[in-house]
Amino acid sequence: MALIGYPTKAKKTTQKKTVMYNNRGMRLEEELNTANEYYRASNIAVIHKKPTPIQIVKVDYPKRSAAKITEAYFRTPSTTDYNGIYKGRYIDFEAKQTNNKTALPLQNFYEHQIEHMQAVLLAGGICFIIIHFTQHNETFLIDAQHVIEIWQQSKSDGRKSISYQFSQMHGHKIDTTTFPTLNYIDIIDKFYLGGE
Amino acid sequence: MALIGYPTKAKKTTQKKTVMYNNRGMRLEEELNTANEYYRASNIAVIHKKPTPIQIVKVDYPKRSAAKITEAYFRTPSTTDYNGIYKGRYIDFEAKQTNNKTALPLQNFYEHQIEHMQAVLLAGGICFIIIHFTQHNETFLIDAQHVIEIWQQSKSDGRKSISYQFSQMHGHKIDTTTFPTLNYIDIIDKFYLGGE
Repeated sequence: MALIGYPTKAKKTTQKKTVMYNNRGMRLEEELNTANEYYRASNIAVIHKKPTPIQIVKVDYPKRSAAKITEAYFRTPSTTDYNGIYKGRYIDFEAKQTNNKTALPLQNFYEHQIEHMQAVLLAGGICFIIIHFTQHNETFLIDAQHVIEIWQQSKSDGRKSISYQFSQMHGHKIDTTTFPTLNYIDIIDKFYLGGE
Repeated sequence: MALIGYPTKAKKTTQKKTVMYNNRGMRLEEELNTANEYYRASNIAVIHKKPTPIQIVKVDYPKRSAAKITEAYFRTPSTTDYNGIYKGRYIDFEAKQTNNKTALPLQNFYEHQIEHMQAVLLAGGICFIIIHFTQHNETFLIDAQHVIEIWQQSKSDGRKSISYQFSQMHGHKIDTTTFPTLNYIDIIDKFYLGGE
């Protein structure tokens, strides 16, 4: 994994301020965490977000208090952010939020993540992405196969994003009128498990 | 998740030195990474170690170089360290190494991890721990059900560890004469999948 200047679009800040990094996408992450917590507490599914990968360089061990990391860097993830188990099936996905009205730029993904999606599909897992278009206030589940195809085509046809239109046509809109608000398990039931 | 003085037994260091934290267990982790990389590259299984959970407090964004985390703390993990997919089945485990000749102390686990193991078993996943006893140079795979039982019994009978003897009797010794050196998938085949 290479070190990266992550998050690329986060607000710059001075050295003295405490910052919330990666605000972009935070709302989606919170809603997914709420859904996952509900699934876990109700014995429906066990799905967790993986911690952000960090390269730790320096750690201080002060007396009588917690170990403090004083130098560390963000690393590029080698997998997707979320995985777990539902109805005995392995579930794996990446979640992205965009303010862009027409498309989610492909630069939101890393090559390793696309390779990971391919490996998961090959192993028989259920793999997808969840995109939230904030300007439309709509969230779609899109099968990983589509993402992999768009990624590969982008190398020849120059397409550099997953469009809102594509998401509408080939994705599955996640109902947000229920509790939990982002009840994506419903889509897995209908689309992947055929209403099992 | 609470902040913790992790790693509890790591070597203390001065503030100016760059440290390798958590050396304890590093060899086991490296061997598991090698095995997992081999499984992934050979399209056998997709199993990854999750990143260490970190609470980030301060990040600097210097010009023309990578974002630098200047204050962060270790958090207690809410799941096990490893998960993924093998032959369509969800795999989930924790790996521990001990210099103790007779037993692995239970303090190597967190309540949340035990609860996670229970949830995974309930959801139909394959869940276990891998213990490496360095003094014996032996590694065992032990089903999570045993770990959960020992954990629960420890609350009444005061047993505070998983003994080497127990590991020999109820665990499955992992053959280390092969490549990869820690070929734990073999045990999954024999013990969980009945030689599928």
